[in-house]
Formats: sequence, structure tokens, C-alpha cells
Amino acid sequence: MKLLHTADWHIGKQLNQFNLIDVQKDAFQQISTIAKDEAVDGIIIAGDLYDRAIPSVEAVKSFDLMLKQLNLEQNLPIYAISGNHDGANRLNFARDWFGTQQLYLNTKIKEALIPIETPTAQIFLLPYFDPQDARIFYNVSVESNELRTIQQAMERVVTDIIAQFDPQKRHILVTHFNVQGTDNENYELTSETTSTVGGLNTVAASTFAAFDYVALGHLHLWQASPTKQIRYSGSPVKFNTKEAQNKKGVYIVDIPDDGPIKYTFKEIIPNKDLYVLRGTFAELTAPATYEQYPAKGAAFFSIQLLDRPQAKNIRQQLEEIYGDVVELKYHVNSTLVNTSHQQLQERADISDSEIIKQFYAAVMAPDELSQAQSDMIDHILTTLRSESEEQA
Amino acid sequence: MKLLHTADWHIGKQLNQFNLIDVQKDAFQQISTIAKDEAVDGIIIAGDLYDRAIPSVEAVKSFDLMLKQLNLEQNLPIYAISGNHDGANRLNFARDWFGTQQLYLNTKIKEALIPIETPTAQIFLLPYFDPQDARIFYNVSVESNELRTIQQAMERVVTDIIAQFDPQKRHILVTHFNVQGTDNENYELTSETTSTVGGLNTVAASTFAAFDYVALGHLHLWQASPTKQIRYSGSPVKFNTKEAQNKKGVYIVDIPDDGPIKYTFKEIIPNKDLYVLRGTFAELTAPATYEQYPAKGAAFFSIQLLDRPQAKNIRQQLEEIYGDVVELKYHVNSTLVNTSHQQLQERADISDSEIIKQFYAAVMAPDELSQAQSDMIDHILTTLRSESEEQA
Repeated sequence: MKLLHTADWHIGKQLNQFNLIDVQKDAFQQISTIAKDEAVDGIIIAGDLYDRAIPSVEAVKSFDLMLKQLNLEQNLPIYAISGNHDGANRLNFARDWFGTQQLYLNTKIKEALIPIETPTAQIFLLPYFDPQDARIFYNVSVESNELRTIQQAMERVVTDIIAQFDPQKRHILVTHFNVQGTDNENYELTSETTSTVGGLNTVAASTFAAFDYVALGHLHLWQASPTKQIRYSGSPVKFNTKEAQNKKGVYIVDIPDDGPIKYTFKEIIPNKDLYVLRGTFAELTAPATYEQYPAKGAAFFSIQLLDRPQAKNIRQQLEEIYGDVVELKYHVNSTLVNTSHQQLQERADISDSEIIKQFYAAVMAPDELSQAQSDMIDHILTTLRSESEEQA
Repeated sequence: MKLLHTADWHIGKQLNQFNLIDVQKDAFQQISTIAKDEAVDGIIIAGDLYDRAIPSVEAVKSFDLMLKQLNLEQNLPIYAISGNHDGANRLNFARDWFGTQQLYLNTKIKEALIPIETPTAQIFLLPYFDPQDARIFYNVSVESNELRTIQQAMERVVTDIIAQFDPQKRHILVTHFNVQGTDNENYELTSETTSTVGGLNTVAASTFAAFDYVALGHLHLWQASPTKQIRYSGSPVKFNTKEAQNKKGVYIVDIPDDGPIKYTFKEIIPNKDLYVLRGTFAELTAPATYEQYPAKGAAFFSIQLLDRPQAKNIRQQLEEIYGDVVELKYHVNSTLVNTSHQQLQERADISDSEIIKQFYAAVMAPDELSQAQSDMIDHILTTLRSESEEQA
């Protein structure tokens, strides 16, 4: 059995007001072609199909066409779940009609307990849920100490899934969480996850030991995969500047009736790539620099200016050269401006609150941040960090 | 061929903040039972399935369950279209999967040109559209004089539909407009439409002369049906106080291979009815009055007080007797207060702007409305009227 594993399509997502739909449509066509070339038996989409609970009309139309092409035209079974960005209830609409054509789209915990049966495998589609959803599903009162964390809730759900196992078949789980931990095997992948290990929103990889393969969504980098059998496919498109350096793609997972599973990463080449540039204004406006990059309009650029140029219309001048400047950052405090790569690297190690403190001191000198102000900033940064993790 | 014709479900609609979903669900179950008892061959839902373009999660869930019950459990073909309240693009989602199970849901003009073929009939599902949609579909420029009105646009669409006619079959049209005109036959129905005849938003009944039956949605009163072959089923539920006196239901339309069509109106009894009460506070709080009506909580009441009682907590006292008071109107201008039915009837004939003029004169005496103020009020009333027609 050969499956294509993808996730985190986030259809309708924008990159700082820049519409990514054409890049997403092109990436989708590459996925469709890979599925054809590899003659896969089905497509896994591990959550975050849309970017938000009420997607735009354009996003709804695009998703409908994509599902139609894979499922009704290429006749491929689809194994999909809702992620934390999807509106589970709205996405549940029409589920029973999809099911008649082998388009399986689960949005509720209870639906995960009924596997999709193929001749050689059972596929469990477990959508994103939070501990509150699990407490409601298992009828556990709010006052109870049970199912407080996602780890506790996941253990309970996995126990119930295992109870459905047919020992004659292989067992595949599709789900959408921040899964952490390694199997300490001779593991080929480097874990480059940016998430905090062991946080409140993480699930231990060991929870999924019973499965032959766990197809994950949620983290956008396939390099964040915790173990050999538990993998993120990553998003098919670069969604923010942190992902600019990373290759995107899908996994082809070849699951024989018995024996080891074979994994192949198939790269998706963006039809409009994302570059992060850092330098002085003079450097970035020099032909020697910009001639290394795609012509105006053929790529997205995130630009970090390392000096404070006296020139007017900085953004306009950069846009004339680079086209779509999705992000433009200035460094106003000269003490922070470092042009060498090594120094830049050092600055990256300063904490966010320290950067704010230095910025304040430079701008408001001789005043410095008071303790109360510092505490408030730390509190805000902590809140922001936990929110951005939830939205990952 | 026997069809059940319903329309204007407006799932998720509220009556002045009062949730109607339980009344809607109960009316739906009656429709489902009528379909079973009458052994119909299919269900027509002539638009306004939802009440707004982005319906609530509760509305989406309810509609999904209703479609599932009729189509997947009772195995009935469904012939549905979007109305002016529906978001056509969003409602188009999953259409191709629905189609595999004979759930036909059209939201675009072009879809209406491909009939659903039964052994004896062609069913054309023409969703609500405006002249602008037709100009885009027919590639007519904005500057052109063509397709300016809905009447012109409809004539063009109907011509294209007729070109698809199979002369061996009967021809049924499902659509969602304000259709006016009578056939001057010995027509059994009384036209009680409240809409303006011949307005900009109306289509002449004669436009549909080629069809054996036209199943309409848009106007909520089945009594507004323009001709014998062109009928409104009306909404299954009373959505405002103007509909309080009217029976609700569906049509059973029995279309033989040849010969006259038989129409039967099947009443739907609301599980929570709507009453409009008018009287003085003393009258309405007297047991002799309220004992005539369902007990507290078992009905909705719209109450018009014909006096200015000195009592405190008027609304609270009325709610203690009647329960769900969806509307409470006071008459503050004593010159407008009339308790006899005949006088009330007379006042109903005064125009809205005249009522406002009298109100202003009474409250602000000795001042009266200036000409500029009068003009402004007339303008607002005209705008309101055209908007409410659009939303009808």
C-alpha cells in the first residue's frame, strides 16, 4: 500500500497581505502529479486544510476543486482530518456524501474510533482536539482531575483506538499535534523543531508506539518529525520567513503487508519562492546582490535593513528592484546594527525581552525600562508565545 | 411523477432574537413524514435554504442532518437551488459528491441549462441571480443596454432553457423570484401577495408559459402564487408577524406523463405557533383574553398595546402571562389609539410617512415636521422598502 502524505495546506493563507493562492494551487498540481507518477493508493491530508474556521469564498472554491481533482477525477481515496485552524463543525458538512466516494474527512474524536479498512491496513483519522473536547466526549466533569492535558487525553483516545486493532493488518494513524521525542534509533532526520520540547501542548512520541505509521500535521517543517515512524510531511508551501530556507514537499510512504516501511520525500518546487535578505541598503540595491535572485515579481522577499539609509522612499526603491517585498525590517538602534554574519548570529541569541530593553534604552536615553515595565513586557511575550504555538 | 415542493427554509433564522430552530426542525420532520406518506419521487427545495450567506454552525449542522435524512436515509432525490439569502459560492461546495447520490443543488445560471433527466420529465434548477450575474454569464458589457432588468435577463435564460427541451417529456422549472401576473383562468387561489406588482424586481408569469410546472421560492405565502402552474409553496414556518394568520405547508405535485397536473396542499402545524394580539393592557392581562391562547411558553406572541398603561414592568407582566413575547409595540400618540377593530383597520390604511408625521406632531407640538425632514423620512422609507423586498 502506497500513500502520499501531505498536511497543512492552509488554503487561503496570506503572507503579510500577499495572497498565496496561486503558489498553493501550483503546489497542489505538483502533489496531484506526484500522486499520478507514484501510482499511490490514496492521499493523506493531516489537517489544517483551510487557514481559518470561516475561510474566504476563494479558499472554499479552491479546496472544492482540489478535492474534486484527486477524488473524483483521479479516483483516489482521501484520508483527511481537520486541524486546529479548521472549523471542525463547518468542515463536517457533506461528510456522508464524501464518504460514498472514499473521501474520508474526520472532524470529531468519535469518528476516529471507526477505522477506514483497506485489505491490508486500518487507517485511523484522528482530528485535532483539545482536552476540553476529550472531556466532553468521555463525559468527564470539569471538576475532575482526569484528561487535563492533551497528553492525558491522547493516551485515553489511543487506548480506545488500539481496542479496534485488527491484528492481521497494519495500523496507520493520521493526526494533527505537536509531537515530541525521538526513538533513539539510527534516525536519519535531524530534529530542527522550533517548538519547546515537553510543553503543555505537546504529545510524547512514545504514545504512538503501537502504530506502524503516524502521519502528522501541525508543524510546517518535515524536519521536525520526532521519529522514523512518526513524521510530519510539512506544509507544501512556505508560509513564513522562518521556513524560507527549507525545502517543501510530501512523503511517499510505501507500506508493505509485512516488513519495513519505505519513505521517500518528494520535493515541491515553489512557482514563486520566498527569500530572506539581510544587508545594508547600499548592498541590497547593488546589482551584484540582486542579480543573484529571481527577477522582479518572480519571488517574495523579506528584507532586513542593517543600516539606516538617508535615502527617501526606501520601500519603493526596494520594490522597484525586488517586486513583492512581503516584509521590510529596519534597525533603528545603531548598537544593534551588525553587518557581519557572525555578529548577526550572536544577536539572534539575545532574548526578545533583552532586545526590547536595549531598544528602549537607546530611544529613551537616559531613561531605562522600570521593573514593572519589564515584567509587563515579559508577560506579553509569554502570552504571545503560547498563542503562536496554538496557531502553529 | 410525484414531487413534494417546499421552499424558503431559512434555517437559522431568528424572530427578533428568538431562536426558531426547534420549530424549523419540527416542520422539517413533518415534511419528511409527508414525503413518506405520499410516497413522492423527489423533493424540490426552491431556494433560501439558509437565512444568510455565512450561516451559524448550528444552522449548518441542522441542514446537513436534514439533507442526510431525506437523501441518504429516505433515498429521495432532492432538487434544490440557492436563493437570494444563500451564499451561492459557499453552497456550491461538495456539489459533485451530492450529485452522485441524486442530491442536485444548483447555485449558478450555467448549471440550470443542464436539466436533471427523469424517465418522464426534465427538471431545470435555476438559482436566484441578479441582472449583473446574467450579464457576466452572457458576457454582456456593463455599458450595454442588454439584460438591464431581471425580466430581460430571465427571458434570455428561459430561451436557453427551452432550447434544451426534450419534447417527449414534461418540463419543470425550479426557481426563486418575485413572479407576478395571473393566467385569468378559473384559478382557485386568491392572490394575497403583499409585493408591488410590476416592480423592478419582478418577473412576469407569462415568461414561464412553456413549462408544465414552475416551483417557486422567495415569497413566503403560498397564496401569492401567480398562476395555477406557477406556484409558491411558501415557507414551512411563520417567520414574521405578517404571516401569523396564514397556514403553512408544502405542495404535493402529481405530474402524470400526460394530462393535467394535480396539486395538493399539505399543511404543516407549527409545534410553537405565532399569535398577534392587539388590545389594551387591561384586556390583554384579563384571563378571559389569555385563556384563549396556548399556555405560557407554548407559543410566540407579538403584542400591540393600544393604550399607555401606568403599570410598571409592562413587558415583564406580559411575559409572565404569555411567555415568549417576540414583539411589544406601544402606541404613545393618543390620537392613534383606537380600540375597535374597524378603527384599527382604518389606521392600517394610513401610510407610514403619515404615521411618522402625526407622531412627530403629537410629541413635539406645536412643532411639525419640516419639508426637508419629511423628504428625508420618505427617502429612508423607500430605501427600507426596497431592501426588505430584496430580503423577502
